[in-house]
Amino acid sequence: MNSKYQYVREFETVDKALPNTWLVVRIDGRGFHRFSQEHDFAKPNDRPAIELMNRCAVEVMKDIKDIIIAYGQSDEYSFVFPKSCNLYSRRASKIASTIASLFAANYAMRWHEYFPTVKLKYPACFDSRVVCYPSDQNMRDYLSWRQVDCHINNLYNTTFWAIVHSGKTETAAEEELRGTFSKDKHEILFTNHNINYNTIEEIYKKGSVIIRQKTKVTTISPNTGQPVERIKLVPTPLYVDIIGQEFWDEHPELLTK
Amino acid sequence: MNSKYQYVREFETVDKALPNTWLVVRIDGRGFHRFSQEHDFAKPNDRPAIELMNRCAVEVMKDIKDIIIAYGQSDEYSFVFPKSCNLYSRRASKIASTIASLFAANYAMRWHEYFPTVKLKYPACFDSRVVCYPSDQNMRDYLSWRQVDCHINNLYNTTFWAIVHSGKTETAAEEELRGTFSKDKHEILFTNHNINYNTIEEIYKKGSVIIRQKTKVTTISPNTGQPVERIKLVPTPLYVDIIGQEFWDEHPELLTK
Amino acid sequence: MNSKYQYVREFETVDKALPNTWLVVRIDGRGFHRFSQEHDFAKPNDRPAIELMNRCAVEVMKDIKDIIIAYGQSDEYSFVFPKSCNLYSRRASKIASTIASLFAANYAMRWHEYFPTVKLKYPACFDSRVVCYPSDQNMRDYLSWRQVDCHINNLYNTTFWAIVHSGKTETAAEEELRGTFSKDKHEILFTNHNINYNTIEEIYKKGSVIIRQKTKVTTISPNTGQPVERIKLVPTPLYVDIIGQEFWDEHPELLTK
Amino acid sequence: MNSKYQYVREFETVDKALPNTWLVVRIDGRGFHRFSQEHDFAKPNDRPAIELMNRCAVEVMKDIKDIIIAYGQSDEYSFVFPKSCNLYSRRASKIASTIASLFAANYAMRWHEYFPTVKLKYPACFDSRVVCYPSDQNMRDYLSWRQVDCHINNLYNTTFWAIVHSGKTETAAEEELRGTFSKDKHEILFTNHNINYNTIEEIYKKGSVIIRQKTKVTTISPNTGQPVERIKLVPTPLYVDIIGQEFWDEHPELLTK
Repeated sequence: MNSKYQYVREFETVDKALPNTWLVVRIDGRGFHRFSQEHDFAKPNDRPAIELMNRCAVEVMKDIKDIIIAYGQSDEYSFVFPKSCNLYSRRASKIASTIASLFAANYAMRWHEYFPTVKLKYPACFDSRVVCYPSDQNMRDYLSWRQVDCHINNLYNTTFWAIVHSGKTETAAEEELRGTFSKDKHEILFTNHNINYNTIEEIYKKGSVIIRQKTKVTTISPNTGQPVERIKLVPTPLYVDIIGQEFWDEHPELLTK
Repeated sequence: MNSKYQYVREFETVDKALPNTWLVVRIDGRGFHRFSQEHDFAKPNDRPAIELMNRCAVEVMKDIKDIIIAYGQSDEYSFVFPKSCNLYSRRASKIASTIASLFAANYAMRWHEYFPTVKLKYPACFDSRVVCYPSDQNMRDYLSWRQVDCHINNLYNTTFWAIVHSGKTETAAEEELRGTFSKDKHEILFTNHNINYNTIEEIYKKGSVIIRQKTKVTTISPNTGQPVERIKLVPTPLYVDIIGQEFWDEHPELLTK
Repeated sequence: MNSKYQYVREFETVDKALPNTWLVVRIDGRGFHRFSQEHDFAKPNDRPAIELMNRCAVEVMKDIKDIIIAYGQSDEYSFVFPKSCNLYSRRASKIASTIASLFAANYAMRWHEYFPTVKLKYPACFDSRVVCYPSDQNMRDYLSWRQVDCHINNLYNTTFWAIVHSGKTETAAEEELRGTFSKDKHEILFTNHNINYNTIEEIYKKGSVIIRQKTKVTTISPNTGQPVERIKLVPTPLYVDIIGQEFWDEHPELLTK
Repeated sequence: MNSKYQYVREFETVDKALPNTWLVVRIDGRGFHRFSQEHDFAKPNDRPAIELMNRCAVEVMKDIKDIIIAYGQSDEYSFVFPKSCNLYSRRASKIASTIASLFAANYAMRWHEYFPTVKLKYPACFDSRVVCYPSDQNMRDYLSWRQVDCHINNLYNTTFWAIVHSGKTETAAEEELRGTFSKDKHEILFTNHNINYNTIEEIYKKGSVIIRQKTKVTTISPNTGQPVERIKLVPTPLYVDIIGQEFWDEHPELLTK
């Protein structure tokens, strides 16, 4: 009886990502400007909001073991799968939608842990895409692209909101920043607002890098009922530079999967 | 400075769905067998679980106005976009991931409304895919395929759990059902378990169809402060047959978008 | 022994065209401006060159029975496959490359039949692509698009070469035509060059439409050795309008495949 | 006027091959079993037929400068483009169809040079596909896959036709070879047919590898009218092993493009 309609399966397309390439899934917040306003996020950076993003990314990595590194900034997060990854036979839409769904569901479920006094008016939503990168350098350049983006945006936003918080309108702040270079913004921050950009916390300037770190974990032995210390690989956020060589030298396992 | 890395954007692929075709996005629960066990769903059908699914689908339709009809059963939901739809310029991965993310986030956020006494142990996750259907008939056959699937599975599950609830093991129930036809299951239900399958609620036998129904809505006028009645199109679950011609005759607007 | 390397097959992509859509394969001459100069094609239109193009298209249609209509103009030809077509399981690259290859091979092989006194300096080459069109109207609009293109280009070229043949430089001709409308070109042709565009042969103004026409064919019976007349469907070039309704009313079988 | 129909361009898909990957275009003869019979090719190998294939591949490489190596055997040829290649912006169908078309057109045009006494009954046709290979090893494994295929097929065909030429039927030859291993075929050839497979020409056992070799070319100087010797890179067929490391060590430029 079913066979009469089953022909419709033939219309599904196969979207297998090219084998032996790095897979990067990037999720992006949908309408996050409005979402951050509706939920009164602090400007330029809301610490609980960033920590919730990081928590969601950690949960995604705990669930999807294939991910070896993730990078997040603003309302986006990128998850990197090694060239050898065969998750869902590398079906791009299945991988992308699963990650977006997991992230968004964790965001809604864990909201109150990070915003205990703020009611979630509506759930945050994220889209996602998969991109293939053939070489290690391509993948690293992708992550560098996102971290440079973080740097540029954070410097702009920090300066913009310093101007606004000093009493000017948003329009005036935009005007003041139009055409300025990086060093001009540093100068405005320091001279007009007494802010040394270099002293701003790394989590804001660098974004968040999550890798699996060896971590001492205490569990209760099911046999003895006694606490047992074990070393486990736990996804852990770092706020470090991933553009230079140093990070990759310190974590050689990332490129040898 | 950014330009050095921006070349990585060239690796993104364009996945625009063919214009002038029906788009169907189907989401599927990931590992829902385990999820339903961990949260003690009733068998064969858990009413709050179904109602939560329907609620999420309603919320998706309230948000994404392009969807004209949705159909859900078990741990899956299909959302249908008209041929003229230009959401996200018809980018398949963006549409699919947004729907999966919205659905899963609503599921996590609204869980406690439907399971006030059950703690959500971990968020439910859904993958999604987009399929294009060129003709009205193809799209209707897709929906028929899913409704036939619902029918077959529900008859099986109803009989299976009736046998189990009567005291047999799951293995014995499987054994008893192996090779049986539809009418055999009806017979087993009626003779051995005193269940007339025809009297089982439509929501279980037909699944849930959501369309926008004209609904009387009472709002408070911002001008007069008085309650005002208006007719609004509200996504509403129905538990009806969508395989036959009748449903489509009653809702001619669905095929003329 | 082979298995060690056979994994490379996994890198091949599946490029099946969406079922139940019209498939159009368009071939385009590669570097035909130079090709036409090297082989001294008459301007604006070279009759043997057009007839060779048509012959190749006829040969393609004799070989590939699925094609129901073809349309050619300038150095391009479009071949239309019905929605039900399952040639090569609708693998787009296989269909497209086969058509381009067949066309180009016939062009090289049959060149001397149409240019008995011109040596083929190097073979003409054609690229090709497949496009899916869901509705009959989409497919007809595609063909209309190409025929309108033929019309515009032929009017321009006819006027351009009339000016050049009257003794002006190509630069001067370009200059004279810049910004002119259709009726201006008609006027220039009539007033300055004594050419009534309406009297120009249809093959130049309309391009070539090839459909399978019932044709009386005489063959020698293998049994009796006598000539036998049969009616056969033979791909036949017509030089007619395919934008209006009339053509499609006269050939209703084209849209009912 | 054109704009009314131009919307149909929106239905074209973008099929850009992933950047920074090796591109391999393989052409395959269509219905070559019949083609070889209709034109009385010698069995198991027809030398002029192979030389015509090689000539066509050389002409393709002379035209398409991006190709760095080609490999041919039986009725197929593979053309390899370096990772940096940007031909036609890496549009897969355009690249694939152009190569198939060029090859087939040369085959038809140059047929009489290799078969001066055999009339070409109908043109040979080739389909083509593009495959991306991310790493050097993947690309080399692809070529190894084809050369192993050549080896296996040639040993089989050599033995098969030796048996047939000794007076047995094709069915009997098939029967005799069923289940035999490589060494069995060597044995059959040597013992029953007095053929030492190792002495068979390399062109049959290895297939044909075309790379650009530095070649002394004599041209007439347009200035002095005198003959001038120059070193030019000329696509040249070799009949060598490309599975082992030696070939790649001898031609290091192939992997450093």
